[in-house]
Amino acid sequence: MEEKVLKAIQDDYPDDFAWCYGCGRLNQDGHHFRTGWQGEQTVTIYTPRPEHTALPGFVYGGLIASLVDCHGTGSAALALHRKNGHEPGDGTETPRFVTASLHVDFVKPTPHGVPLRAVGTVQEIHPKKWRVEAEVFAKGNLCARGEVVAVVMPSTFQKKGD
Amino acid sequence: MEEKVLKAIQDDYPDDFAWCYGCGRLNQDGHHFRTGWQGEQTVTIYTPRPEHTALPGFVYGGLIASLVDCHGTGSAALALHRKNGHEPGDGTETPRFVTASLHVDFVKPTPHGVPLRAVGTVQEIHPKKWRVEAEVFAKGNLCARGEVVAVVMPSTFQKKGD
Repeated sequence: MEEKVLKAIQDDYPDDFAWCYGCGRLNQDGHHFRTGWQGEQTVTIYTPRPEHTALPGFVYGGLIASLVDCHGTGSAALALHRKNGHEPGDGTETPRFVTASLHVDFVKPTPHGVPLRAVGTVQEIHPKKWRVEAEVFAKGNLCARGEVVAVVMPSTFQKKGD
Repeated sequence: MEEKVLKAIQDDYPDDFAWCYGCGRLNQDGHHFRTGWQGEQTVTIYTPRPEHTALPGFVYGGLIASLVDCHGTGSAALALHRKNGHEPGDGTETPRFVTASLHVDFVKPTPHGVPLRAVGTVQEIHPKKWRVEAEVFAKGNLCARGEVVAVVMPSTFQKKGD
């Protein structure tokens, strides 16, 4: 049976902020990445769709970057939520982060057709800015390393683009 | 009328390497990013699909990262192809690069519903390794800066993942 994150921060994002193509539960066409705690680390598990190939048999790097991206914002939201005394599922509205920067090193070709597991370590830079280091595994093998700097969603996201 | 890249390197990728979800012309479900020369720079133009949102009105960062990724590998292929005396459309098989590392700084929220334009500057590190600096514009505004280090596809991509 496929492993699943039970209590994910994205399940508790406010409705207005749950439309992300990567991790928004209300985006019907999206990936629905879900991120939860695993001890002091964070985890996101996702099995790429058949079309998510770089070439047949290998996962598209942009999909891995997307996974790292939403894993990063989700991990930062988990960490700030916990700092505020809350856990996913406790009925409290969560913080919502956006990505300031994203870095991915592709360590080896990532096999397609199996679940990918992103594991994150979160570090506070300041209360509204967090760094998430991520490792992406397929079948237990490290395939990519990532780093996200995530910031609490600024007010510029509250109005439409200019 | 929407601006279009006329001669794209991806149109000439060998069939076996044209299945990328980002830029493979044979991947029916993919983005079909296409990258060509614009003077000494490279350009990729793409209008995100309706579902490619971060929140309504803004483009998903993972899609921007995907655009930078394939723009990077395409730009590196263009540059090595030109170094070898060739241009897209001249009937010669092209080199094919993969991404070693990807970095994106999200400068400002990217408005949804308009074409994105990635503009690249390519620099040779050595013949099989190139650096591509990219800027992503929407309506003429710089929204993201990216850097890709691309390498000629290694033989580990010729066999299925382990």
